[in-house]
Amino acid sequence: MGDPAGIGPEIIAMAMSRPRVREICRPIVVGDAEVMRKAAGYVRSSLKVRSISKVSEAQFAADGMDVFQIKDAKLSGLRLGEVSAEAGDAAFSAVKTVIDLALAKEIDATVTAPIHKEALVLAGHHFPGHTEIFAHFTNTRDYTMMLAAKNFRVVHVSTHVSLRQACDAVKRERVLKVILLANDACRQLGIEKPSIGVAGLNPHASDGGLFGAEEREQIIPAINDAKARGINVEGPQPPDTFFAKAVSGIYDICVAMYHDQGHIPVKIRGFHFDAKTRTWDSVNGINVSLGMPIIRVSVDHGTAFDQAGKGTASDASLLDALEYAAKMAVNR
Amino acid sequence: MGDPAGIGPEIIAMAMSRPRVREICRPIVVGDAEVMRKAAGYVRSSLKVRSISKVSEAQFAADGMDVFQIKDAKLSGLRLGEVSAEAGDAAFSAVKTVIDLALAKEIDATVTAPIHKEALVLAGHHFPGHTEIFAHFTNTRDYTMMLAAKNFRVVHVSTHVSLRQACDAVKRERVLKVILLANDACRQLGIEKPSIGVAGLNPHASDGGLFGAEEREQIIPAINDAKARGINVEGPQPPDTFFAKAVSGIYDICVAMYHDQGHIPVKIRGFHFDAKTRTWDSVNGINVSLGMPIIRVSVDHGTAFDQAGKGTASDASLLDALEYAAKMAVNR
Repeated sequence: MGDPAGIGPEIIAMAMSRPRVREICRPIVVGDAEVMRKAAGYVRSSLKVRSISKVSEAQFAADGMDVFQIKDAKLSGLRLGEVSAEAGDAAFSAVKTVIDLALAKEIDATVTAPIHKEALVLAGHHFPGHTEIFAHFTNTRDYTMMLAAKNFRVVHVSTHVSLRQACDAVKRERVLKVILLANDACRQLGIEKPSIGVAGLNPHASDGGLFGAEEREQIIPAINDAKARGINVEGPQPPDTFFAKAVSGIYDICVAMYHDQGHIPVKIRGFHFDAKTRTWDSVNGINVSLGMPIIRVSVDHGTAFDQAGKGTASDASLLDALEYAAKMAVNR
Repeated sequence: MGDPAGIGPEIIAMAMSRPRVREICRPIVVGDAEVMRKAAGYVRSSLKVRSISKVSEAQFAADGMDVFQIKDAKLSGLRLGEVSAEAGDAAFSAVKTVIDLALAKEIDATVTAPIHKEALVLAGHHFPGHTEIFAHFTNTRDYTMMLAAKNFRVVHVSTHVSLRQACDAVKRERVLKVILLANDACRQLGIEKPSIGVAGLNPHASDGGLFGAEEREQIIPAINDAKARGINVEGPQPPDTFFAKAVSGIYDICVAMYHDQGHIPVKIRGFHFDAKTRTWDSVNGINVSLGMPIIRVSVDHGTAFDQAGKGTASDASLLDALEYAAKMAVNR
């Protein structure tokens, strides 16, 4: 469901009304039935919301929406577009519930709508984001974030750490691990022999050692380790021209050395900001947690509190996320 | 002229044949007359190359190309597309000559074509690039590189240093200096009250101090210093969404904290790689050295040795560079 004060519920209601979604999966919404009933109204959906308390109760009717009711939701005073502990707690509870259902193998994959970090913290849940919640409750140590916008996919050696710590995180073992996770992810997407491009850490990939030693000491050895395992991988390449090429989709997946090195090109490729109206007029892209025992795909945008309840938000990113999750579940 | 074994000479010959170039400036090519004569042939230009040894000898005839002959060029054995000390030395000599002419105020602005670093080094000139040559011979300490692709302009707090050193370079005084240089550059381009956006260094601009302290300790104070001087500046913003917005041109200029933070979005905006043919099918963008006593604008692409002599290279970036240089010279 995501944060019930944001656009999550209404983009879910929008997506659930699309025949394509029913072709690729049997969807269950984990959240609050009353919130979802209102959300269906915001987007003029005629889907009948049915509250269920077990996966086995789901009917997957074309004109219905099965909502797995989270426990103890205190949402009677919910105000759209506002940060609150109640909304944060309900969002957290929905995430925790899908993780439990997936770990119990009652569901094949999980897709998440946006949550709001401040609301989470107000509710006493101190996590920087979804990925860390999933890692914590699935007890996963070696994971990575994959972002994808259209045919451009990027995995990250590190994400939510300072740039200085990100430099420290560029270690042979970790880079190799991320290359292997990238390779596995592409295979799960049905790509038999994925081609992987790796960026350097430093400008010009250090220009032969002139600016920084990480390419020579860590990244090149990791690439050689991966090649020795039969992986189709090349790099490290100068990050600027590498990503200017890679956005065209010439690699099946790219390895970025830190958060913004990957996030800047993915968001430029997937998002479009209208300079005249000063608003985002399209937001494509998804976020996949790799290395976890369960499949988790997320939209790549936020709660957009300013648009909540207006029925104007786009479900494009959510549809992409559902496609990815369904494909990964089939190939797992 | 740039490296005579690359595409520099022929894109110059192409540009010199365009009426627009003659409208905005009185161009003098600094290089080797024989090289330029051959280059004119590669692009089927009918311009008559005239060798001159003083700026006052230039005729600026519409059907002519005035070439200020560099001294001691040893280019009789020049082979296109090959790295050589002779070509590197001639390229260096051309750069040194334009700097001298500009310092002597015999010319109003300088525009550079691509040079090849290996060739420079073979010739005994140990510089990472043009910018450093200009800084050295103009005795400039506080300078910065501005990249521009269409209406998207970026200046950099640091460029050719390791990412670790780039983190160290994010200091209040330097960030302020770069904001001021950015403001001056826009004013030289005729923008009266430039709007300036500043990126953070860390992911999410440190998310309130969770990942890194540079935003709070260095960048925010620098932005406040700039505001106190009446500059229209905002930030620091989360780098990924900031650049995804900024490529739309909503700021007159953006401040990037390190080389690839700025170079990745500019190259994505200005370049286009064709995934089918695996070649760049357009390369727009220019590079301006700010903070120097002379105007210096450069193309934002390399020597493209594989295309040299074929007459297939585009002069688009060079035309942009000439427009910028002419505009800056007028407003200086």
